[in-house]
Amino acid sequence: MDIGFIGLGQMGHAIASNLVAAGHKVTVWNRSADKADDLVQQGAVLAGSPAEAARCGLVMTMLADDKAVEAVTFGPEGILAAANPALHVSLSTISPELSGRLAEAHLAIGGRHVAAPVFGRPDAAAAAKLFVVAAGAAVDIAAAQPLFDAIGQRTFVVGAEPKQANVVKLCGNFLIMAATESIAEAMTLAAKNGVERSALLEVLTETLFGSPIYRNYGKMLVEEKFRPAGFAAPLGLKDMTLVGEVASASRVPMPVLSIVRDRLLSTIAREGEDIDWSGIGAVIAADAGL
Amino acid sequence: MDIGFIGLGQMGHAIASNLVAAGHKVTVWNRSADKADDLVQQGAVLAGSPAEAARCGLVMTMLADDKAVEAVTFGPEGILAAANPALHVSLSTISPELSGRLAEAHLAIGGRHVAAPVFGRPDAAAAAKLFVVAAGAAVDIAAAQPLFDAIGQRTFVVGAEPKQANVVKLCGNFLIMAATESIAEAMTLAAKNGVERSALLEVLTETLFGSPIYRNYGKMLVEEKFRPAGFAAPLGLKDMTLVGEVASASRVPMPVLSIVRDRLLSTIAREGEDIDWSGIGAVIAADAGL
Amino acid sequence: MDIGFIGLGQMGHAIASNLVAAGHKVTVWNRSADKADDLVQQGAVLAGSPAEAARCGLVMTMLADDKAVEAVTFGPEGILAAANPALHVSLSTISPELSGRLAEAHLAIGGRHVAAPVFGRPDAAAAAKLFVVAAGAAVDIAAAQPLFDAIGQRTFVVGAEPKQANVVKLCGNFLIMAATESIAEAMTLAAKNGVERSALLEVLTETLFGSPIYRNYGKMLVEEKFRPAGFAAPLGLKDMTLVGEVASASRVPMPVLSIVRDRLLSTIAREGEDIDWSGIGAVIAADAGL
Amino acid sequence: MDIGFIGLGQMGHAIASNLVAAGHKVTVWNRSADKADDLVQQGAVLAGSPAEAARCGLVMTMLADDKAVEAVTFGPEGILAAANPALHVSLSTISPELSGRLAEAHLAIGGRHVAAPVFGRPDAAAAAKLFVVAAGAAVDIAAAQPLFDAIGQRTFVVGAEPKQANVVKLCGNFLIMAATESIAEAMTLAAKNGVERSALLEVLTETLFGSPIYRNYGKMLVEEKFRPAGFAAPLGLKDMTLVGEVASASRVPMPVLSIVRDRLLSTIAREGEDIDWSGIGAVIAADAGL
Repeated sequence: MDIGFIGLGQMGHAIASNLVAAGHKVTVWNRSADKADDLVQQGAVLAGSPAEAARCGLVMTMLADDKAVEAVTFGPEGILAAANPALHVSLSTISPELSGRLAEAHLAIGGRHVAAPVFGRPDAAAAAKLFVVAAGAAVDIAAAQPLFDAIGQRTFVVGAEPKQANVVKLCGNFLIMAATESIAEAMTLAAKNGVERSALLEVLTETLFGSPIYRNYGKMLVEEKFRPAGFAAPLGLKDMTLVGEVASASRVPMPVLSIVRDRLLSTIAREGEDIDWSGIGAVIAADAGL
Repeated sequence: MDIGFIGLGQMGHAIASNLVAAGHKVTVWNRSADKADDLVQQGAVLAGSPAEAARCGLVMTMLADDKAVEAVTFGPEGILAAANPALHVSLSTISPELSGRLAEAHLAIGGRHVAAPVFGRPDAAAAAKLFVVAAGAAVDIAAAQPLFDAIGQRTFVVGAEPKQANVVKLCGNFLIMAATESIAEAMTLAAKNGVERSALLEVLTETLFGSPIYRNYGKMLVEEKFRPAGFAAPLGLKDMTLVGEVASASRVPMPVLSIVRDRLLSTIAREGEDIDWSGIGAVIAADAGL
Repeated sequence: MDIGFIGLGQMGHAIASNLVAAGHKVTVWNRSADKADDLVQQGAVLAGSPAEAARCGLVMTMLADDKAVEAVTFGPEGILAAANPALHVSLSTISPELSGRLAEAHLAIGGRHVAAPVFGRPDAAAAAKLFVVAAGAAVDIAAAQPLFDAIGQRTFVVGAEPKQANVVKLCGNFLIMAATESIAEAMTLAAKNGVERSALLEVLTETLFGSPIYRNYGKMLVEEKFRPAGFAAPLGLKDMTLVGEVASASRVPMPVLSIVRDRLLSTIAREGEDIDWSGIGAVIAADAGL
Repeated sequence: MDIGFIGLGQMGHAIASNLVAAGHKVTVWNRSADKADDLVQQGAVLAGSPAEAARCGLVMTMLADDKAVEAVTFGPEGILAAANPALHVSLSTISPELSGRLAEAHLAIGGRHVAAPVFGRPDAAAAAKLFVVAAGAAVDIAAAQPLFDAIGQRTFVVGAEPKQANVVKLCGNFLIMAATESIAEAMTLAAKNGVERSALLEVLTETLFGSPIYRNYGKMLVEEKFRPAGFAAPLGLKDMTLVGEVASASRVPMPVLSIVRDRLLSTIAREGEDIDWSGIGAVIAADAGL
């Protein structure tokens, strides 16, 4: 397929590379153009603006936050200013509110919108093993399916309105933090009562909690290795803030969310901005005098 | 082996039955003797007192709470009053504090103590698929191993002091409640934003959270089927209270524990004593106006 | 003095009326001009735009939220578009962040800014018994002092940067909600243990907690009279959200804030938008099965 | 009157001294008899046992906790073993549950029971300025009234069942901690945004929160003077644990209680056992990186 791809950060670069490798003709754009160098060597084309990348008719975006997605969409020479209306497939973790505005804006000019945020860290992106959570019109998702197949191991369709996928993605990130907080509280209790953290973790993951999240985050908590950050605490805070905004707008009290939000604030205040979001474990232990 | 077994509730009866089936000579005792009728038909012997059951030298107990374990151990004609000092293998979910007192009391008369609480609901007990979490002297655990093999699928040894196993068991129960609370908060957020609970659960369990707890409790939350109770909310509250007592004694703040404890109180106050502990999901949804 | 006054809602109207009564020449502006009718009869002059009201050189604003203050300041024919740079005295409960932007914008054109949010409900405003919390340059506060004297019983100066007054105002509103939540929890505990809410309140306010907040909010909780709303729950939520944003930006975990925020969400979800913010008491009681 | 008085700690000693000074004939007992030396010089009589002190017909107790009250009441030579049934006036902060058991036990032997916990620190006790919160039969309270008049500035009667007074006392202590936590959160927010803690406190106490608790605890938080402890954190934790037990038994979720309980645990774990309960302020500030 002939597509545009915007956003060549750690995640976006790996994804774009897989799209090129799968034989698609990819026109890329990034704020710092040099991030595209090796992709161009692999066969990608460098666009001069988001609008140019979107000219292809289907454009994917993978960006850091709402602000960045707004800039490449609504800004001058943004996607909405492309020669032809496009199908915009947004992979970023953004607010459902922005997702709704994107859908409306595209619709207004005859374009279409699919939200397709992904689960997986950079290594999963590189291995084309992401999980894609998509929402939008069935025909649009079908159009993007070959691309999802090139970057992920499985696609879940969770609704016909794009923002529903963003809600699911935020729920997932919330649950990762909730699990990490809970495991760290339990480990601290165990440690202060003479039980090895690793012994607790083994029982948990070999019996009732044998999932990747419990294994991976549990391991980080056992090893107390929170730097360098795979996913920095301020980014986690950004996501939990987005969850909080959705919860507030839809009148849903979420006390565990409140705890992880406060915990991330404390972690950043005490440990600095460069700690992994699993670093809440350090603060949970310190709170108990460890 | 020639053993005693005390406590023939739903869990204890299933376990004792498996011990008999495995060829062990089991002398049983229960406060209401009629619970032993079918076991006797299978070949078990009925004892007239805990002390009599403990005469065999190795006695297992599977009881509802600290009070019941104290009664059969320290009470008149209790285990400590047996003709010979015994190896007492306690399967119950009790406080580490009581576990410590049991160990001391047995030691004082030349007996031994192993704590071996189990993970698994009654169906797992019936299928001999429990997970056994054991702590105590290696020689004592080795002595009980054939029994563990007859009732469970795997044994974890988490320490040399019996109470360490109780700590791990309490951590596990806490994490079940923490996961249930967290999933229910996320599902409520999803539901109020147009996402089917089942769609969210499928994404979670097929990607990052594919463990038995997330599958089973997630399913209960999707179906909102909280009665009849598999494990009633007041029993959950009892366990969370035990966790809180350990946390308090060892100076460990556990905010997620505080939330699930308050949530269970609210659930019992609003829904009654007969609801399953996963019924916190009903209150979480109601709190958001659902 | 010759001043402008913008915003004639329940609070603003009462304040403007007191300024007129104190002999000041007041040029008023409101989005709905008819709210000014009786003030004009009392001697006020009606302006055609915020800019016109600001022409006087000193302009006070008393508006509902950040958005309204932004509109009358930065909007077309806004305060910043006045013929002369003005001293802008902002009485509204707004974010410190906006207060900072206002100060910068006024400074840039040679104007000045004082933040002077007030404590007191509409009856206190009508009686000229407000408490004024002011921050800004000493000379600017001195210039506005005659006006503060006309509307309030006392002025507190809390700093030289305008936004500091907004922080103090938000702290005050947070503490009102925190006290209400705490009292309601205690009253619910008392009620479920056979103690009259009013008996508890009497002991509290006649011994250690004899302040207006405890008396007034305590009385509302005893009488369970939450409608009509003196200050509606969604407005309370708006303020708590502002507090949360300041807390998040400055990395301050505030768990009691988290509780009152979640409680307001639950109150609005279960009881509707038209309940007073003290109506959290209804939900606190219901959570305990009352 | 001819009375007995048991418990000569810091509070009890001051109270007993006032009773002697008021002209009552006081027979005292304390575990460490030397604490009675100066009282005997003032005219008090030293008893050899609690039972002997209770022989007078009316006996007051002022002790540290449930355990101490149980010991002097139910123990050998305890109050219940006195030659004559007594009216037992319990001033201690104990559980409503124990209060109920005391009432029953006294009733069973023809005695009577009044619970009359007090508000006030040792200096208020020395000045005979305590607040007495009494519950019990009207006739019994009337009998004790002259004594209450000699030790306090005012008596509140909150119910006919003794334990109701204990509930009110626990509510009061809970609200002190809740206010302290809330003020400290607000002060931390203020401090991190450039507002002096003392400036915030002045606004609060001179406007809406002008009560002794806000003044005194606010001052301690401003000065960050948490040692030596006037009321040590572990004692505060003991009281909050009692509140939690009542809340749990009566099915009342109290999230602010959960926060102060966790906060006290963290304070003790990080700062040690010898810090004042207002020392939670140190941990609240540290959690924000101060």
